[in-house]
Amino acid sequence: MTDQTLVTDAAGTRESSGVVDDLVAALGDRVSTEAADLERMRGDKSGWLSPGRCEAVVFARSIEDVQSAVRIAARHGVPIVPRGAGTGLAGAATAGPGTVAISVERMDRILEIDYDDEIAVVEPGVINQALSDAVAERGYVFSPDPASKAISSIGGNIATDAGGLLCAKYGVTREAVLGLAVVLADGTLLRTGRRTVKGVTGYDLTALFTGSEGTLGIIVEATVRLRPIAQGLVATIGAFFPSTTAAAAACSAITASGIRPAVMELMDPLSVAAIDAYRGTALGEGGQAFVLVQTDGAGSAEEAEIASRLLVEGGAGRVDVTTDPVEGERLLAIRRSMHPAMETLGHVLIEDVCVPRSRLAEMFDEIARIGAETGLTIPVVAHAGDGNLHPNFVIPVEPGSDPGSVVVPDHVWAAADLLFQAGMRLGGTLTGEHGVGVLKRRWLADELGERSVELQRGIKAVFDPDGLMNPGKVY
Amino acid sequence: MTDQTLVTDAAGTRESSGVVDDLVAALGDRVSTEAADLERMRGDKSGWLSPGRCEAVVFARSIEDVQSAVRIAARHGVPIVPRGAGTGLAGAATAGPGTVAISVERMDRILEIDYDDEIAVVEPGVINQALSDAVAERGYVFSPDPASKAISSIGGNIATDAGGLLCAKYGVTREAVLGLAVVLADGTLLRTGRRTVKGVTGYDLTALFTGSEGTLGIIVEATVRLRPIAQGLVATIGAFFPSTTAAAAACSAITASGIRPAVMELMDPLSVAAIDAYRGTALGEGGQAFVLVQTDGAGSAEEAEIASRLLVEGGAGRVDVTTDPVEGERLLAIRRSMHPAMETLGHVLIEDVCVPRSRLAEMFDEIARIGAETGLTIPVVAHAGDGNLHPNFVIPVEPGSDPGSVVVPDHVWAAADLLFQAGMRLGGTLTGEHGVGVLKRRWLADELGERSVELQRGIKAVFDPDGLMNPGKVY
Repeated sequence: MTDQTLVTDAAGTRESSGVVDDLVAALGDRVSTEAADLERMRGDKSGWLSPGRCEAVVFARSIEDVQSAVRIAARHGVPIVPRGAGTGLAGAATAGPGTVAISVERMDRILEIDYDDEIAVVEPGVINQALSDAVAERGYVFSPDPASKAISSIGGNIATDAGGLLCAKYGVTREAVLGLAVVLADGTLLRTGRRTVKGVTGYDLTALFTGSEGTLGIIVEATVRLRPIAQGLVATIGAFFPSTTAAAAACSAITASGIRPAVMELMDPLSVAAIDAYRGTALGEGGQAFVLVQTDGAGSAEEAEIASRLLVEGGAGRVDVTTDPVEGERLLAIRRSMHPAMETLGHVLIEDVCVPRSRLAEMFDEIARIGAETGLTIPVVAHAGDGNLHPNFVIPVEPGSDPGSVVVPDHVWAAADLLFQAGMRLGGTLTGEHGVGVLKRRWLADELGERSVELQRGIKAVFDPDGLMNPGKVY
Repeated sequence: MTDQTLVTDAAGTRESSGVVDDLVAALGDRVSTEAADLERMRGDKSGWLSPGRCEAVVFARSIEDVQSAVRIAARHGVPIVPRGAGTGLAGAATAGPGTVAISVERMDRILEIDYDDEIAVVEPGVINQALSDAVAERGYVFSPDPASKAISSIGGNIATDAGGLLCAKYGVTREAVLGLAVVLADGTLLRTGRRTVKGVTGYDLTALFTGSEGTLGIIVEATVRLRPIAQGLVATIGAFFPSTTAAAAACSAITASGIRPAVMELMDPLSVAAIDAYRGTALGEGGQAFVLVQTDGAGSAEEAEIASRLLVEGGAGRVDVTTDPVEGERLLAIRRSMHPAMETLGHVLIEDVCVPRSRLAEMFDEIARIGAETGLTIPVVAHAGDGNLHPNFVIPVEPGSDPGSVVVPDHVWAAADLLFQAGMRLGGTLTGEHGVGVLKRRWLADELGERSVELQRGIKAVFDPDGLMNPGKVY
């Protein structure tokens, strides 16, 4: 594996027409070379764009389609970019010149739901929320809940080991995946894992593929856990704090109390101000930070009582508690406005550091320091129950210019570098849930060490000896 | 990797004195060649014995000791057998001629407990129960609870991805491990994972090492999650059924109801009879099966009510429910007597198939059929909430003979083969929690397929190119 970037080299250009012809001959109208399709494949939700368009995109409808496309690309030595719904935030699914994108977004059938075993078998293009919707009536839910769950696919959730708002209580995607079917770089189909609660036969390849960002193969089917929806009332708490530090300390106290809220989110005053500006509200008057807590399950009421008390003791100026679903939704809407509010300000680079939960307040302080030192305004929202912070870098977009053409400037990457270094100093990681993709490759060895990177490249070479599977991503 | 067995070859014999001399020169009295130590290294709790004694055992006290021993063994080309408490049930930690055992049982310090972050950092030789004992006063517990938790080490729990009684509610070992330090086959130290709740930088090497049975490296440190002990009353239910099939169906109904008991165990009439014989009781009069359910947490009382109702509706002749800890302990003691009761009958091979929870009753029927066909008596106890069954094959021991010399006869392996095939036919796995080790190697490819085994051998070669780390195990 070389650290190759996705530029068209002479070989790529020479091969591309041959590979496209062969793909069309084998797969017909499942292959597109239309400009709009190719242009869409250049980007994801990170805003990063590959330097040009890929040669073709295959909209696979079946495992056999994926196998056929992979075999043809491999025969031509053309790199493959696996693609789900394209909602990633690290550039992992972006396809550029000299590559073929293989999209599984049209493989979107729920193949099986088994309530007795609490599992579902799905194609990778099934939208996260669609699975939860399909099982809601019977009282079940698919736990992984990235903020993108209305638009992101389960295959992509698995490929990135997506997190979300409920992870401290209900786990990350990895915990919800029992088995996979994966098309490897030579076109063979590999099945991993099981349908059972337990199973320890051989290495845990299911976990290895989870979070591998398309570098080991293309996930074409998944056996996932369903979870019974928690019984009882859901209590939602909104609390305003005079400072982020106090808010973060209160969140850490809630974790340390041993209760386990389903949701615990923290928005700093810059975020609250941006939301106020976007919604025309005045929640954050005087520069307040906002904490949102939601408890569920049989202990919900008692947990809400403990959380409220700790928020008050932690210095909250106002604490609203409700078990009314409409009122709860109103409080949640504040958090949900974050991303739209940011987007009105310009192009947004959403960062994703995760620190031990006890270091949350310190990490907020570090971000404030970095903001002051670099002169950048960095609103931060955090999954406080996980120690997972999303600092937002807003890059102004010239009026009338193409938002797709926005390039993250070097001084923003310099600030992000300070951020990652601070996160790692506090015992954290440079990505809690978004992945490495293209955007964080340069920091990979800083966190993992050279030996680990070397071993991981060795693993990749076992699955993909010719380096055709999503090259230039992660490693 | 060849499918080599642990017999002394010419090279091994020639090298052994050299390697032992070098180990003693470097590590002094941490190296033992005493007969009792070497003899102990031949076996584990499976009863399987390697064909002879290893050359030496290194009782490491530190990471540096392990690194030093590995480097010396590697220099001599002598295979290494990593060893924890030696309580495994698949022969994975057994050391034979031509090998050096590296035991971490004396690396038994708890290095750090952090309640704010709900983690502990431990040396691998820390006994599972010892960690829970250390944090109990503060209201925490280490979740993984193999039946061996009073004697098994956390390093071994991780190396085998140990299960236990609480898995359906509280997960298997993998879910409790955040990060590892591992000494690789060349003596280098690799750190994997993190101290944070989330983290997706690179492949999940922590999960890869979890359950790898010593074939990729020696786990020398672990960062594990602590869990707040569930609040509220614990309810314990004991129920007797006229048939195993009815008992299994009732357990499946409890799972399907969406409640999540902490414990749900099923003992078939043969097991109950053996326990009665051992304890001088008359619980199973008339050939009854026994179901044990325990609920905890805020919803405990309500869950116990639902479970009791489903047990009665499922045909239980008698259902005892108690929230009295002493009474609860009395019911649990029935389950805990299983293994001692078996051991009075002879040498026990405890099998470990796991099927989808809805197939539990069918798997019991299959075992009954296999018992009838082969003429063997096969008492079965199951972690019914997981679909994980432990059929017990009892091999009579001649009076006065060495129990260590008992060899599992071919006709028992033939019956076990029928068992594994039936489990896999029902969508299950040949090992839910005990691992592959030596005993199940021959069935590995039946479950995984040749391609998966080939890829897994490729992964092993990345970490251990010379095949020195626990050769002859798993692969």
